[in-house]
Amino acid sequence: MRIGVLGTGTVGRALAGKLDELGHEVVMGSRDPEATAARREAGRRGGPSFAEWHADHVGVLLGAFADAARHGELLFLATSGEGALSALGSADPADLHAKTLVDVTNPIDASSGFPPTFFVTNTDSLAEQVQRAHPEAHVVKSLNTVTAAVMVEPGSVAEGRHTMFTAGDDAGAKDQVANALREWFGWQEVIDLGDLTAARSMEMYLALWIRLLGVLETSMFNVAVVR
Amino acid sequence: MRIGVLGTGTVGRALAGKLDELGHEVVMGSRDPEATAARREAGRRGGPSFAEWHADHVGVLLGAFADAARHGELLFLATSGEGALSALGSADPADLHAKTLVDVTNPIDASSGFPPTFFVTNTDSLAEQVQRAHPEAHVVKSLNTVTAAVMVEPGSVAEGRHTMFTAGDDAGAKDQVANALREWFGWQEVIDLGDLTAARSMEMYLALWIRLLGVLETSMFNVAVVR
Repeated sequence: MRIGVLGTGTVGRALAGKLDELGHEVVMGSRDPEATAARREAGRRGGPSFAEWHADHVGVLLGAFADAARHGELLFLATSGEGALSALGSADPADLHAKTLVDVTNPIDASSGFPPTFFVTNTDSLAEQVQRAHPEAHVVKSLNTVTAAVMVEPGSVAEGRHTMFTAGDDAGAKDQVANALREWFGWQEVIDLGDLTAARSMEMYLALWIRLLGVLETSMFNVAVVR
Repeated sequence: MRIGVLGTGTVGRALAGKLDELGHEVVMGSRDPEATAARREAGRRGGPSFAEWHADHVGVLLGAFADAARHGELLFLATSGEGALSALGSADPADLHAKTLVDVTNPIDASSGFPPTFFVTNTDSLAEQVQRAHPEAHVVKSLNTVTAAVMVEPGSVAEGRHTMFTAGDDAGAKDQVANALREWFGWQEVIDLGDLTAARSMEMYLALWIRLLGVLETSMFNVAVVR
């Protein structure tokens, strides 16, 4: 399948790398692909530079955000929260038309320090802002509730079954995403929380995730819904 | 132990009833105890009237909010979110001095319909508002993340181990609450999320809880942190 991944950070790389390994044709998009490709310094969190990472994933093509959007039959929005709307804004709206757009972003205010705060929350969500800006796309919120490595390898959380969520207004797009989560990434439990307003709850959950990150001293965790 | 429970709704009853069964001396507080005691109509969610419930828990004494605060060595704040500050405001501050106050409330804006919204969130929490209004008390946020029946009987969630959280600025008060959760109510996993600003994350989690309630069609659920 042709897949576009907008964003070249930790999340974009985890998604693009896994999708490439699965045999999909992946184009990653960045604001300035030449600068991204030339980047030799380590990532913000000490990971490999983009060039080092790309050397291990030569099947993934790098372009502008608009190139990734044009290429993909299925799109992942994997930028920072603050970069989400401008990344999509550089795409041709015709390239988003009727496409499923998996919104993996979190509206963290990067300037807020600790405890982090959200630049949209409670009565709105970043996913809804994205959908309003691009009514031609089918926005599905998902994957924003776990660290990048867990998104594409849920089995790396040792203790067994845990839960991924989806929210969105288009039932067909949500089914497509749930199938991808199960069949490509190996998620065993995917709970559809409802329409796109439920993305608020998935974004607000990040506040708890960040506290747990501080307490557990690992990002390789998730929650399981038990009943 | 002498325990004060502020609030006579579903949450207050679950707490007071369980603590009474465990042999503690419980005083429940309401805004207007005569009206509460005389109430014969069913609860908002179709449960028994207060009088019916009280007939099964004659060891629990009913008084004003101030009476419950005076009586308890340990206090539970189990009113509606909107009623929390006024309930405590009617207590004598000397009766809150150096006492552990377990804040079980959620700042749901009852007028907001669905999806519900919060009247304080993101950069502040109801727990912090309570603590600022009553610096003499040791506020510990806990139990607000599950339905009343699960608070005092976590084993009623069939699928096994699941997680309760605490947040607060006083380490001794948090230890006291964690011990009570384990020994009185049977919680197997209690995670201390940190200082009272972490209460924001516990209150924001309610957005996800409410969505799950709609999807799972039962309130007898919780999340387990898995790693």
